[in-house]
Parts: sequence; structure tokens; C-alpha cells
Amino acid sequence: MASGLQHPATDAQDGGAVTVISVDAMGGDRGPAAVVAGLGLSAAKHADVRFILHGDRAILTPLLAAQTGLADRVTLVHAERVVTMNDKPSQVMRHGDGTSMWSAIDAVKTGAAQAAVSCGNTGALMAVSMVRLRKIPGVNRPAIACLWPSRNPGGFNVMLDVGAGVEAEAEDLLQFAAMGASYARNGLALARPRVGLLNVGTEEHKGRAELKVAHERMEEAAEAGGFEFVGFVEGGDIPGNRVDVIVTDGFTGNIALKTGEGTAKLISDFLREVFGSGLLSKLAALLALRSLKTLQRRIDPRRVNGGVFLGLNGTVVKSHGSADETGVAAAIGLAIQLARSGFVDRLAARVASTVKKSADDPVGEVGAKS
Amino acid sequence: MASGLQHPATDAQDGGAVTVISVDAMGGDRGPAAVVAGLGLSAAKHADVRFILHGDRAILTPLLAAQTGLADRVTLVHAERVVTMNDKPSQVMRHGDGTSMWSAIDAVKTGAAQAAVSCGNTGALMAVSMVRLRKIPGVNRPAIACLWPSRNPGGFNVMLDVGAGVEAEAEDLLQFAAMGASYARNGLALARPRVGLLNVGTEEHKGRAELKVAHERMEEAAEAGGFEFVGFVEGGDIPGNRVDVIVTDGFTGNIALKTGEGTAKLISDFLREVFGSGLLSKLAALLALRSLKTLQRRIDPRRVNGGVFLGLNGTVVKSHGSADETGVAAAIGLAIQLARSGFVDRLAARVASTVKKSADDPVGEVGAKS
Repeated sequence: MASGLQHPATDAQDGGAVTVISVDAMGGDRGPAAVVAGLGLSAAKHADVRFILHGDRAILTPLLAAQTGLADRVTLVHAERVVTMNDKPSQVMRHGDGTSMWSAIDAVKTGAAQAAVSCGNTGALMAVSMVRLRKIPGVNRPAIACLWPSRNPGGFNVMLDVGAGVEAEAEDLLQFAAMGASYARNGLALARPRVGLLNVGTEEHKGRAELKVAHERMEEAAEAGGFEFVGFVEGGDIPGNRVDVIVTDGFTGNIALKTGEGTAKLISDFLREVFGSGLLSKLAALLALRSLKTLQRRIDPRRVNGGVFLGLNGTVVKSHGSADETGVAAAIGLAIQLARSGFVDRLAARVASTVKKSADDPVGEVGAKS
Repeated sequence: MASGLQHPATDAQDGGAVTVISVDAMGGDRGPAAVVAGLGLSAAKHADVRFILHGDRAILTPLLAAQTGLADRVTLVHAERVVTMNDKPSQVMRHGDGTSMWSAIDAVKTGAAQAAVSCGNTGALMAVSMVRLRKIPGVNRPAIACLWPSRNPGGFNVMLDVGAGVEAEAEDLLQFAAMGASYARNGLALARPRVGLLNVGTEEHKGRAELKVAHERMEEAAEAGGFEFVGFVEGGDIPGNRVDVIVTDGFTGNIALKTGEGTAKLISDFLREVFGSGLLSKLAALLALRSLKTLQRRIDPRRVNGGVFLGLNGTVVKSHGSADETGVAAAIGLAIQLARSGFVDRLAARVASTVKKSADDPVGEVGAKS
């Protein structure tokens, strides 16, 4: 483990002792009450995990006291200031010291915690994470990965980048492929994830120039990256079962993610209208209650709450700003799972081998196929 | 009407006489039988419309004979060759003469028909339409516009470009705004459509450089373009009621469209599973049958089948390749509606005034606000 010696908490966790998650209590749309309630749900489920909670002590102390059994498992770290949804990332990066967000990330930097969770401003969280945790060697552009309900046996696909940046060169897309595959191995337990490159058609001549280059690079790098490259995929494949990891730039990924969420919301509202109108429909809805709840659970965005920042020296999970306690608990649960798998070090190793293998290729290797 | 004198059929239609639609019978995934059946549905609904059908006479003659009352309303034009889904657009553009697609577009060029419909290869159809119909003055990049089920009173939003190109500069996006607004006026009967620019956030500092420039240009051009500019919108707004026309580049739009379709399909499959499992659920589904059918109708992609090519000297409607007879009939219905409204000439006039107004602005006008 490359950085283990400077991280006492990580060492303790390696010995099976304690997983510690750093949680930013402020900055979400529903305020600290939703975050502390979510932390309560998560703590009840994971009895062996400890938490560091960052925010205004005067607000958080009574909220914590209202949850049973949290007192001796949560360390409260007071932070005077809060990053709001309107703060510019560049400003927060320069002057964010003293905010709960900055403090939450710093706990990962010092090794006090193995992963951080925040519901705050995405751009600011990425900026603070970049400046405090730094990129891992070989990564030019970090990415945010999300889970997407799908037809796959595991029920989810991974898509990245969904909004760390607004563009990506071929080389960035190759790194996204390696990082996304590593996330699918550690987050979804897939031995050899299938990676696809998002495009407007599956034929090799289609799409933008950088995608054609990235297509070639991914074919070369798939073996070293431990993934299977399935080539170009289309928007319709994002919730499908052709692919486990969908690679795209942060602009396209963000729009696809929000389009999918918006479409699901529209249909679910229509469904509610339909079953709310007329006596027969209401009776039918009553009879079908359990089935409808199953459906709702399957497409509930709160269950897959948590965008993971990939490519940094530390695990950061971004929860939806509007997450309620169920959503916050899902994001904390994801952070726990990744902290326990030693995800960051595994990802770094995989990126190093993928990028190196790919960079070596044009020069040619003795014994390698030309 | 700029080009009216060379278009006898259009003149006839202006006089209230005959609307003629040119239909490519070949190249769809379900073959000519689905196209002819869709034409039959459409003909039954629009008793005053005539059709020109392009394709293999030996195949089409018996299909037409099987439909009652079509014989004297359809002119069959024999075409030896078919454009397949695998043909490259550049090849079809150079050597597509003699295909049913080329012949269908030519009927609009000569004025024999006012609009063309095809289920064939999108890239090839756009290439043939460009080379035969040519772009209208002031348009640099044509676009494909689609209808999207939404919360708006009319039930639909317009999005463009969904795949004519793979990128767009600020000036192209401005033209898309003018063209999309004109389509919403003529296709959705909205007097002053609300236009939004698709981005990863609604704050003005967000997104790619060309979007910031396009944002400024649209603010300036809104009045001349006859639309209200609502600023940046996000993926979640595409099925929403904040906006009527969503403007984006062809790459992003195509991915958003297919992501939305894929998400709707996923949920509809889940719904079917849910109502297919267990006796209570089946009974519930039976009771709720009418409600579920209402929902299905509301989100049925076949009802909104038809991407319209904007920016050319002629109306071309691209039907889904996999469209069945209901889908084909919807695409033909859209072509009829646009042909009757004299859409192409209205759009050309609006683009001319928008682009001119916008180009004039930087120089400053006497009496204009600075």
C-alpha cells in the first residue's frame, strides 16, 4: 500500500479494526437534519463503523443527541463556515478553509478517515478534493462515476464522467475506462467489467474525432486494464445489459444522467395520476400496492445516491443535494463499501498499468503483437 | 413565397387543392409492408391527401392492391435500388441516384410533393436531402428536430439537433433556436415558444465556451426570432414545463434522446414484469387496464415518431427505422401538417430575420438599446 505509513487510521482498518467515514453535515438542500438522520440509519446498519461529522457544533449537537447510540461513535469537528450551492468552485478552492466541506475532505487527507461524503455544491467539492487530495499519478482529469439502474443481473451500470469536467480528450477517456472498470470491480463485484464508449452510433466511422482515437486506445489497453472493451454504445445502452461501464465526457454524461432522471420522474408522475383517477384504478392500485412498491424501489434514485470521485488520492462520495435521510444513508453506505475494499490503492495500481501499457504500445515491445 | 413559381404542386395546395406527400417505401427495418400499411392508415384519416410512393414496383404493387381505396390516390414511382442501414452517407450522396430514398427526395425538389417521409438510414437521408434540396440562405448547419413527451399543456417539447451533425458552434446554435421556434409555432401551434439552451447547470458561468457565446446571441435575437429565451436548461428540463424548445448540438441531443427512450423502455418493461407476477397483481392490472393504456398512450414513442429535418428547401420527415404501421402513419401525419402550414417558407423567413438581426447587433443600430 503506497501511502499506508502516513495513514494510521487506514493501517488500523487494514488490520480489521475500524472503518472511519468523514461526513460533511452542511450544504445539502435539506440541511443538517437530513444528513444526521441518514448517518443514524447508516450507523444502525454498520455497527463497526465510526464517523467524523463536520459542521456547526451548535446545530449538530442537539441533532446528534436525538439519535440513540450515536454519541460514542461520532466525533464532531466544528466548522464555522458553509459552502453554498451558489459559491463558485474557484473561490471555494482558494478561500474554502474553515468550511465544513474543506474540513470533511481534510480528514481523508490526514488519514483520520478513509472516505468522505458531502451533499454540497458539486463543483466546489471537486475543486476542494482536487486541491487537498491531489490527482493520482497518471490521471490527467478526475471523473465522477454514478450508478444507473439497468437490466444487468446486478441491477446497475456505472457511467462516468457525469460532471467533473465539461470535455475529455481521447487520453482522458482511456483513463476513465480504467477507473470505471476498477470501480465496477470494487463497487459491483464484477471480475471483468464490459466497458463501452458512448457515441451516436455503434459503427466505427461514427462520431467525433477524439472518440475514434479513444476507441483504438481502449482496444489496446483493455487487457492491462482488466476489462472487456465492447466498442461504441448508444444512449439506449446506458440502462441496458450490453455493457457494465459507460465512458463519456462530463458534459454528455451529466446531460444523459439528468435526462434519464427526468424521464423516470415524468413516467412515475404519470403513473401516479393514472392510479389516482377513478374508482376502479384506485382499487387496482390498492391490489397492486406491493407490486408497485417493488417497481418504485427498483427505479428509486435514492437507492443509487452517490457519485464517486475517481482519480484522487482518497475516496469522496457526492450525495445528491436534495437527498433525504434514505439518500444520505445510501451515499454513506457506498463510502463504507469502498473504504473497506481499499479501493483507492487498487484503482491507482490499475491506472498505472493501463496508462503505461497504452503509452508503451506505440513504441512496440519485444514479444508483443505488433 | 420565394420559390413558389417553380412549384406547381405547392401552388395548387396554396389554392386549397391538393397536398401531396412523397413516401420512401424501402429501407425501414420492417420492410415495405409496414410502410404501405402506415400509408393506408394515414390515407384513411386524410381523405384529401395524395401520395407518391417510391420503391420496387414488383413488391409494392400487391401491397397497394391489398389496401382498399389507395389505388387512385397513390402514384407509384419505381426505384431499382435501396439504401441500407449500413451504407455510408458519403457514398449514398455520390452514388445514390436510382434509390427509392433519392427518388422520394427528388419529388420534393421538383415540386411534385410538398414533403417527404423515409424510414431509412438517417445519415444517408440527411446527405441526400442536403445535396438535392440545399440549405436555405442563412443556415450553416441543418438540424433534426424531435418531439418529446412533456408536462407542457400540449404534451410535447421540441428538441434539436438530435443527430444531423456531431457538433455545433455558437452561430449554429442560434440558428437552431430560430428554426426550433418556427417548428414549435407551426407544428405545436405555440405563438411565442420558450427556447432553452441545454447545459450542465443553469448558472451563466457554467458549461462550454461556445454555450456562453450562444447564450448572449440568443438573448439578443429572441425578439426577431419570435421566441422567449429562458436561458440555460438541464437534462431534467427536457420532459419538463420550463421550456418548449431545447437547443443543443447533434451529439448531445442524440444521446439525450436515446437515453430518454431507453429509460422509458426500461421502466415500461419493469412495469410489465410487476403486473405479470402474482394473482393479485394480475387482477389489479385487469382492473387498471384502461388507466395503464392511457399511460402507455402518453409515453408511446410511436405517437411522436418523426424527426423533422430543418434548414433545407423542403420538408423531410425521418421516421424511426423500426417504426410499425402506427409509427409510419404518425410520421406521414406530421409531414401532412407541415406541408399544409407552408412551413418551409415560414421558417426561411424567420431564419433570415433572426440571423440578420443578430449579425447587425454588434455594429449597433440607431434607436436600438445598446
